Amino acid sequence: MSITEQESAEMKVVGTRISRPDGVDKVTGRARYGADLMLPGMLQGATLRSPHAHAKLISIDTSRAEALPGVKAVVTRDDFKDQPSEIVAAGELPVNYRDVVRNMMAREKVLYDGHPVAAVAATSMSVAKKALKLIQVEYEVLPHVINVVDAMKPGAPILDENLRTQGDESAPDTPTNISKRVQTGFGDVDAGFAAADIIVEREYDTEPVHQGYIEPQACVASYTEDGHAEIWVSTQGHFLIRSFTARLCGLDVSKLKVTPSEIGGGFGGKNNVYGEPIALALSRKAHRPVKMVMSRNEVFRATGPTSGANMKVKVGCTRDGKITAADAVLNYQAGAFPGSPVMQASMTAFACYALENVRVVGFDVVSNRPKVAAYRAPGAQVVAFGVESVMDEMAKKLNMDPVEFRLKNAAKEGVKASFGPTLGPVGLVECLEEIKSHPNYSVPLGPNQGRGVASGFWFNIGGETCVNMNLSEDGTVALMVGTPDIGGSRASMSMMAAEALGIDPKSVTVSVGDTNALGFNFLTAGSRTTFASGKATVEAAQKMILELRSRAAKIWDISVDAVVWEEGEARPASSNAGDFEPLTLAELAKKAPKTGGPIAGHAETNVQGAGPSYASQVADVEVDPETGQVKILRFTVAQDAGKAIHPSYVEGQYQGATAQGIGWALNEAYIYDENGRLENPNFLDYRVPVASDLPMIDSIIVEVPNPNHPYGVRGIGETSIIPVTAAIANAIESATGKRLLKLPMSPPEVLEAIEGNA
Amino acid sequence: MSITEQESAEMKVVGTRISRPDGVDKVTGRARYGADLMLPGMLQGATLRSPHAHAKLISIDTSRAEALPGVKAVVTRDDFKDQPSEIVAAGELPVNYRDVVRNMMAREKVLYDGHPVAAVAATSMSVAKKALKLIQVEYEVLPHVINVVDAMKPGAPILDENLRTQGDESAPDTPTNISKRVQTGFGDVDAGFAAADIIVEREYDTEPVHQGYIEPQACVASYTEDGHAEIWVSTQGHFLIRSFTARLCGLDVSKLKVTPSEIGGGFGGKNNVYGEPIALALSRKAHRPVKMVMSRNEVFRATGPTSGANMKVKVGCTRDGKITAADAVLNYQAGAFPGSPVMQASMTAFACYALENVRVVGFDVVSNRPKVAAYRAPGAQVVAFGVESVMDEMAKKLNMDPVEFRLKNAAKEGVKASFGPTLGPVGLVECLEEIKSHPNYSVPLGPNQGRGVASGFWFNIGGETCVNMNLSEDGTVALMVGTPDIGGSRASMSMMAAEALGIDPKSVTVSVGDTNALGFNFLTAGSRTTFASGKATVEAAQKMILELRSRAAKIWDISVDAVVWEEGEARPASSNAGDFEPLTLAELAKKAPKTGGPIAGHAETNVQGAGPSYASQVADVEVDPETGQVKILRFTVAQDAGKAIHPSYVEGQYQGATAQGIGWALNEAYIYDENGRLENPNFLDYRVPVASDLPMIDSIIVEVPNPNHPYGVRGIGETSIIPVTAAIANAIESATGKRLLKLPMSPPEVLEAIEGNA
Repeated sequence: MSITEQESAEMKVVGTRISRPDGVDKVTGRARYGADLMLPGMLQGATLRSPHAHAKLISIDTSRAEALPGVKAVVTRDDFKDQPSEIVAAGELPVNYRDVVRNMMAREKVLYDGHPVAAVAATSMSVAKKALKLIQVEYEVLPHVINVVDAMKPGAPILDENLRTQGDESAPDTPTNISKRVQTGFGDVDAGFAAADIIVEREYDTEPVHQGYIEPQACVASYTEDGHAEIWVSTQGHFLIRSFTARLCGLDVSKLKVTPSEIGGGFGGKNNVYGEPIALALSRKAHRPVKMVMSRNEVFRATGPTSGANMKVKVGCTRDGKITAADAVLNYQAGAFPGSPVMQASMTAFACYALENVRVVGFDVVSNRPKVAAYRAPGAQVVAFGVESVMDEMAKKLNMDPVEFRLKNAAKEGVKASFGPTLGPVGLVECLEEIKSHPNYSVPLGPNQGRGVASGFWFNIGGETCVNMNLSEDGTVALMVGTPDIGGSRASMSMMAAEALGIDPKSVTVSVGDTNALGFNFLTAGSRTTFASGKATVEAAQKMILELRSRAAKIWDISVDAVVWEEGEARPASSNAGDFEPLTLAELAKKAPKTGGPIAGHAETNVQGAGPSYASQVADVEVDPETGQVKILRFTVAQDAGKAIHPSYVEGQYQGATAQGIGWALNEAYIYDENGRLENPNFLDYRVPVASDLPMIDSIIVEVPNPNHPYGVRGIGETSIIPVTAAIANAIESATGKRLLKLPMSPPEVLEAIEGNA
Repeated sequence: MSITEQESAEMKVVGTRISRPDGVDKVTGRARYGADLMLPGMLQGATLRSPHAHAKLISIDTSRAEALPGVKAVVTRDDFKDQPSEIVAAGELPVNYRDVVRNMMAREKVLYDGHPVAAVAATSMSVAKKALKLIQVEYEVLPHVINVVDAMKPGAPILDENLRTQGDESAPDTPTNISKRVQTGFGDVDAGFAAADIIVEREYDTEPVHQGYIEPQACVASYTEDGHAEIWVSTQGHFLIRSFTARLCGLDVSKLKVTPSEIGGGFGGKNNVYGEPIALALSRKAHRPVKMVMSRNEVFRATGPTSGANMKVKVGCTRDGKITAADAVLNYQAGAFPGSPVMQASMTAFACYALENVRVVGFDVVSNRPKVAAYRAPGAQVVAFGVESVMDEMAKKLNMDPVEFRLKNAAKEGVKASFGPTLGPVGLVECLEEIKSHPNYSVPLGPNQGRGVASGFWFNIGGETCVNMNLSEDGTVALMVGTPDIGGSRASMSMMAAEALGIDPKSVTVSVGDTNALGFNFLTAGSRTTFASGKATVEAAQKMILELRSRAAKIWDISVDAVVWEEGEARPASSNAGDFEPLTLAELAKKAPKTGGPIAGHAETNVQGAGPSYASQVADVEVDPETGQVKILRFTVAQDAGKAIHPSYVEGQYQGATAQGIGWALNEAYIYDENGRLENPNFLDYRVPVASDLPMIDSIIVEVPNPNHPYGVRGIGETSIIPVTAAIANAIESATGKRLLKLPMSPPEVLEAIEGNA
């Protein structure tokens, strides 16, 4: 299925920069987001949340709230059936509904500041808020633990008395906060270190950071009198919202219709249910639709950030720069329930390197923080801070250029990847070469300026994907996909459909279908959408083309094999086939009723063959020796797209991922007080980068085609966040001679390092 | 494809009376109709309508309206491109967009009281109404003509100077109100009459009547800044709303998404566009969504009633009751633009009879009334008043029982139908036999009481139909159809899907998809939905079953031919195939991701093979000799359903159609004043029957399977309205000895007949 260079060169639509189909709507406020639906009789929902980091829920008395005029329903833990503890598959996700139901609404205990305890639906938000104050909750406050290292210590407050460490034979059968031990790798690591001339070993700490989407979680739920239900929601995956909510509310999956709104950012944070089952339960009780919109405070306190971590990284090398062994221990925060991305972290930790001896041991650790959610390349960005910092130190010790050092050890086609399989064609070497030859890499540096390099790897995924393609009666095409459009997929799908059909992409209108319209679609996540929905789109187009050829064959009364599809029209395959005028899409559409009915193409598939995407980056910084402030002077990103369907969107992804990495590197952190209450749940105190913090981010699109996609596409949404923190740490070290081992590298931390106290 | 009696007897779901899936929602007000959508920033639209029956539009000055604060857009004829005069196909409908654009918004002339002249969108309805008053329209009032006979007279006011009579070679090339002459029939009618012993010839007049749906036309339109558009609308056919509106507003069809709301009745009256293109044009101009909801006044003045008609019917018979010839001339009102159902009237006029000599000549006549729309069995109900009255008179003259007379001449399988083709299996004889043997037919009659019999025929249609069937991950089924559910199709589709799949219909959730989700679907009209969407549903189920068998074959590693689908599960075809535990739908759904991805079935088809449905009815009435009021004592309906999927819904259709026929017979009429203004545009002055006017309508479901449907379905929504007016006229004659030749047979008319002035 791989494309040749010639085929790539012949593509007419793929690779161009068409106007985005949703841009004006978004900037003029016409696009409809999660909070933008109103229904007749709709109520406002509000959630009562725990003020405690850890407490037993002794009792909840909702009677006074229920008696308040205007209150139409109150729900608590009692309105949701308990779920068994077992791991089930929801698409590609392993899910334990025992934990999901508890995170949605506290049962035996509250486990973090902001954990939902009850919810009300009322005729207005002011009534709803008044009602929340009338709910009387009796807590028995327990000792809490926030930090991952503290949570692993003997004697730490235990979140779940039933928790035991999975995957660790030697773990004692006593309560623990360590839910899981994972190990990956191969070779003989001890022998590898024995063969090393130089060993670098360091310990790092990172803070959890929030995905920082602009649009808070929002939904409208309506449980109808006939036992059907509808949810309108801002989400990365409405089919998973359907699965989760149907399960938690005890509905047949097909009886719940979930419609995705426009989405104001997700980055992994909108893969899960939060208010949706609550809103539906309220609607069922109130017999009216219920809207629930989170405040920013609620978003910070109760939706998933990514994991913070503590990690040790050790790398050994020969004097000529060949890595002999790599080893790491990763302690990942999961938040209040198990499920950090420590496995992804373990697998990606050393994936940029061709290694013979590698080992990563990871631990998944619960503590009294909100349950983590995915965040752009989940797990990989955290461990890259440690690994790529160590690699920089190693290059320095070897007196090698950091790009050369990486090139010497780069993972490439045919290499056994550190996470197991043998790599197919991948673009790390190409990315490093691009960085090396980029003018930015040789700009002279001034005083207090430094330059840092880092690389990153992300798997990308495929998964269950369904699309419908329908030919309208005027010959234009309505394409329906099941993956919410977060990063421009309506544009890219229209382009791939147009390329396959040989028509103008303006003739293809792409919409995101609700759960009634399509078979199950996995999330817009894992950088899978352009790859998987794109592959399914091309499959549907090919089926439609076969149908179009067959209609032309019928009209011409020749065999379908004697009809070819070229440049958007059916043509006789050769002059032997007969002398017929070509039939365009519009002509075949007009004749469709008389040749068999409407013309369509469908694909229902579990898409395989995602191609990994590597990236390399170089950051130039200037450190203010007076304040410790780090200014990003230049930032250059090279990442392998396989094939950029729409280069502007690809560059946008590289830039957006980098911007988020810069915030993570320099500023973002959760600050908890001594009682485990979050002190900075807002965008004033939790500082994400703004435009004035950022330089133009130079983006280089490397294209090493993925042989498993008809146009060579890899996913590209995630990799460029991975190297950023290390690239900046390396640049700070280059500027100051001081290596920072902890995120964020905020002015006080940098100042402390400069002043020699670190 | 026909079902055998045994197969019919073995059906487990089809033929049962499951709970309706939408009933509680409707009675509790939770169902969402056309006016129930609110969008952010939505404006209210209102339409300025002509107060004149016929006038030249000299000028329209909207400047004062535009200047009114709160007015965001005004549109007139200038906002819509003119359309060429040509007949194009929209699904099964012939459409002349030249007329459609003029009916939607007057151009050169206003042609009826209520004809739209301009429209505004404003921040509230009160502002919108104030703005309408500020629009200055200069009219040149012209003479008008309301009645069909008057409109055909030489010298009548001419609506369209360019109109010439199509299909009439002898018509002069001068302006006329007669748009079309049609003729059907065969044999030698003159010879037939010459061979007759008895000839009855009468002239009849009927009034146009309104479809009388409870919910007025309503829509919300939103033209987005990126050039896409959405319409939410109460309609019988959202794909046609899309076709019409895209054409009138100059959009690619695929760029317009139309979502059908619940529909509060249509009966043919919601097949057309009225406010939708206006709302969309307003939205485009205002850059905001626009809601347009008609008042009842607007519904009466400007949406289609069915045709009124003048007709002559002549039938000849031998002394022993054999019809030798049948002849009719039908003059049908089209309203302001050509397009009455006179062709359907001509074809159905004598379709209940086996004839050798038959001729029907029909004329389509414009006059200054709203353009007619379809109404339940369009055309056929009007002509049946004349034909079935004449047949009754004939039976009387022959001294034959009217059922016996009809049985003697009944159309049946193998007979050349009066409209051309040879009939397949049909149920008229069975209906007549049911009526004859029904206890109601032998209840003794008291003073002033009478009994009347009549029959009716309707073709039914198929047409373009698409469905998606998706298997959800828990094994329940989401079925999406493209035909709005007016008469219970969500129930019947779930039942046919369940029957085909061998599962409980509760496991099938049916939704009506928007135009993005499915290929083109023709209207819910022509009694086609249960037949056509049902047939497509079974086709989709069969495709899904093939996929399910193939997944089971993959799991068992045997050939797909060795797997059968029985009782909702995959089983080895025989013990030779292997010893495997059956796999249920739920099990196969769970395994779907690993066996190839989601499981679906689709059908895109132009469904053929609709089976005609005949009905016979008997009405018992009592006539009050003092007031002329006619009370319906008993009403008995026998109609051929082919196969009743859900007998309660079928009975409901028989009863609803009869109730509408009773209103038509006894009360409904448009009253115009001397200026051509409608005097009774409301439900107080236009009297439809209410519950207290009606007896229990006894419904007999005759089942002569349609061989072209997997479960034998014919359409059943229309036929039972056809015989009603004649059955009642015949009963009145039986009670009073007086034959009424004009509808409605309201108390004054009946009294006049009794008192001998008629």
